[in-house]
Amino acid sequence: MVRSPDQSSTQRAEDSQYWEVSARFDVAYKVICANGVLLSSNPLLLQLGSSEKNCREDRARRLVFVESEVFRFYSEVINRFFCGEGSRIVVLNAMEKTKNLRLVERTVEQMIQFGINRRSEPVIAIGGGCLMDAVGFAASIYRRHVPYVRVPTTLLGIVDAGIGIKTGVNFGFHKNRIGSYCAPIATVLDTTFLATLPKRHIRNGLAEVLKMAIVSDATLFELLESHASDLVEACAESSPISMRIIKLSIQRMLEKLEPNLWEHDLYRVVDFGHTFSPVIEMLKVDCLLHGEAVAIDMCISTVIAAKRHLICIAAADRIIALTNCMGLPMINSDCTAANMQTALDDVIKHRDGLQRIPVPIAIGEATFLNDVSLQEVMEACEYLQRPFGEGALG
Amino acid sequence: MVRSPDQSSTQRAEDSQYWEVSARFDVAYKVICANGVLLSSNPLLLQLGSSEKNCREDRARRLVFVESEVFRFYSEVINRFFCGEGSRIVVLNAMEKTKNLRLVERTVEQMIQFGINRRSEPVIAIGGGCLMDAVGFAASIYRRHVPYVRVPTTLLGIVDAGIGIKTGVNFGFHKNRIGSYCAPIATVLDTTFLATLPKRHIRNGLAEVLKMAIVSDATLFELLESHASDLVEACAESSPISMRIIKLSIQRMLEKLEPNLWEHDLYRVVDFGHTFSPVIEMLKVDCLLHGEAVAIDMCISTVIAAKRHLICIAAADRIIALTNCMGLPMINSDCTAANMQTALDDVIKHRDGLQRIPVPIAIGEATFLNDVSLQEVMEACEYLQRPFGEGALG
Ligand SMILES: NC(=O)c1ccc[n+]([C@@H]2O[C@H](COP(=O)([O-])OP(=O)(O)OC[C@H]3O[C@@H](n4cnc5c(N)ncnc54)[C@H](O)[C@@H]3O)[C@@H](O)[C@H]2O)c1
Ligand SMILES: NC(=O)c1ccc[n+]([C@@H]2O[C@H](COP(=O)([O-])OP(=O)(O)OC[C@H]3O[C@@H](n4cnc5c(N)ncnc54)[C@H](O)[C@@H]3O)[C@@H](O)[C@H]2O)c1
Ligand SMILES: [Zn+2]
Ligand SMILES: [Zn+2]
Repeated sequence: MVRSPDQSSTQRAEDSQYWEVSARFDVAYKVICANGVLLSSNPLLLQLGSSEKNCREDRARRLVFVESEVFRFYSEVINRFFCGEGSRIVVLNAMEKTKNLRLVERTVEQMIQFGINRRSEPVIAIGGGCLMDAVGFAASIYRRHVPYVRVPTTLLGIVDAGIGIKTGVNFGFHKNRIGSYCAPIATVLDTTFLATLPKRHIRNGLAEVLKMAIVSDATLFELLESHASDLVEACAESSPISMRIIKLSIQRMLEKLEPNLWEHDLYRVVDFGHTFSPVIEMLKVDCLLHGEAVAIDMCISTVIAAKRHLICIAAADRIIALTNCMGLPMINSDCTAANMQTALDDVIKHRDGLQRIPVPIAIGEATFLNDVSLQEVMEACEYLQRPFGEGALG
Repeated sequence: MVRSPDQSSTQRAEDSQYWEVSARFDVAYKVICANGVLLSSNPLLLQLGSSEKNCREDRARRLVFVESEVFRFYSEVINRFFCGEGSRIVVLNAMEKTKNLRLVERTVEQMIQFGINRRSEPVIAIGGGCLMDAVGFAASIYRRHVPYVRVPTTLLGIVDAGIGIKTGVNFGFHKNRIGSYCAPIATVLDTTFLATLPKRHIRNGLAEVLKMAIVSDATLFELLESHASDLVEACAESSPISMRIIKLSIQRMLEKLEPNLWEHDLYRVVDFGHTFSPVIEMLKVDCLLHGEAVAIDMCISTVIAAKRHLICIAAADRIIALTNCMGLPMINSDCTAANMQTALDDVIKHRDGLQRIPVPIAIGEATFLNDVSLQEVMEACEYLQRPFGEGALG
């Protein structure tokens, strides 16, 4: 209600000294497991966010953004699926290096040319985290928000980038520096896309699964341990064990995200692995993947916790060993004092004055540190730089 | 709650076929009348959105964006006010022609250089609607949102652009095509800025006051009629009658905005005057002001309603006469069939498939039309192009 606290029944609006405006915004979206989403017999994707009139497949008018590598593999099925008159498929070269405002502008230009309606013609984003982040951001600012649907095609997209409400792009060397909180209408998870995803990118996605295991679920961690050697193959084939692991990871992730969608609370366990990684990720955008940078960060954070005796050596060793066993890096040469200092400085701005660094205290449990020194970080890095297995933790 | 509808107590997370994520976001902000906001003895501006530690004037660290013309007039008082160590004043040339993504990028660069904390160092925007729209947009996307405070220095900013939650910039020739809904922490209204505002810009702001009168308040309309001749002077002097009119207009505006902050309902009476104006405004960005374009649009919409006998001729005549008497244009040469068609086409996209054109049905009351033809629009334009007073309505 527009309240003027000084406005008694006898006072008039024109005497107000201030007004309080308040309102609430309700958000609801679905994360749907639906393999075969692009089969022409499957109506799901065109029904999402659509009025009845517009969802009949022969009439659906959709603006569809597809990542270029995905289009290379799936052009036939995508063209067949969106054959409705008036639909347009736009192929975008969306990768970490091009995930910036220029990509957002190109997306907006396409929205203008296509002339999408403000509410009833959801934009569809098919691709990895980079494409979804950029197209989601464009949708969130076009006419101050048009609806969109996400179809992640990478494992990282399926377990992480696709299922929250964050969008964004890089700004210069600053990772995801601009963006928005804007829920999609729905995210449709189709793991059959993983059949064509390079193995390295499957491992990349598994890094975020590992993150959820370490901070929230010992059972998930054990599943990863037991299947570490054939996990990549399992994901590529959408085998039952990979589906079980993926769904469990999503469940844990959504449980953490939902009560804090807008990050009002900056103590976030899902930020584990995201303290030092933004800086090292942006330094070698062509060779270090997001999940790989996260893996390195998780190892550093784990060693810091171990050296403080917050987590027992055995558990820390298991974390580092599993990271290694899953084919993820534990450290790299960009973990210099200068870069780690940059990361520590920026994280204080990002987390509003405190470090709030998530570190594990057991398998499946985490806490936060606000007093990590550069020296501690560098000691952790030095430990990780020794040949694996050498030297003692703690 | 993360709900998996298929997840009975005996089922496990890994069997989920879909999840529903839902949450609510509460918004609350203040619109405060406080003349003398930049007096160095006035702590208000530095207290807003600040933790106790950071609001003590000698410690306050603020990034302040000031419109260049405003800085020309008020540099001394602004420099004196933000003398705290670590504060930075950035002067931006923000006008309709430069209200675009480049301006947003420059603003973001300043935020990076300054290194603002994510939550506790609100950005302050001092200027007209253009500066507030661009800086507000930048604040809404920087790290996916940092808090900001608005200090409008134009009448249009005080009665309209400053008090809602919309931000945005133009994209090419497309008026406000990208932007966000993002409430400021607070907006501080100081009418003493109007002392230096060019008279034409006061009239420009009065156009939005007139809009609120026509669609929602006959008393406000009568006040405008009684004081039309000395209103501009009254505003420049913050005289009691201008304060009364301004506050009444704000009250009506907030009553309409608050229940529909995110425009879920696209039938908005405050859109009166904003159907044809976006197109003609962008054609002559250097010579036609926002409020002037709105005035033209209000006259066209009123004549359309009169010709349909939705409003009586006498009331329509009063609206047009008052527009004229307030020194606002009723029509211009850009109201060609081609431009009006462009406007009709775009408004259907913007209002999701229907025209939803607000038109007055009496002084203080409006309805919506969904079936306005180009011919009707052009007949209204032709009527308005005759010398004032000639020809008959209806
Ligand atoms: N919004 C969020 O909450 C969130 C969360 C985590 C990560 N992210 C972001 O996600 C991005 C990383 O996403 P990503 O790992 O998906 O990277 P990506 O989007 O760059 O895709 C990885 C690679 O896989 C290719 N590819 C995608 N799908 C394929 C398929 N089915 N078959 C074959 N090749 C395919 C792409 O061409 C690309 O080369 C980062 O920018 C990160 O910041 C966002
Ligand atoms: N966000 C919203 O809800 C909303 C609502 C209405 C309008 N708007 C936008 O606002 C913009 C128009 O705002 P505006 O009319 O304030 O224009 P403006 O920001 O261009 O300012 C008008 C002129 O006045 C000068 N000026 C500003 N304050 C002054 C002062 N105190 N003394 C002397 N000169 C001063 C400026 O230099 C400028 O030349 C448009 O772009 C419009 O789209 C936004
Ligand atoms: Zn991540
Ligand atoms: Zn307006």
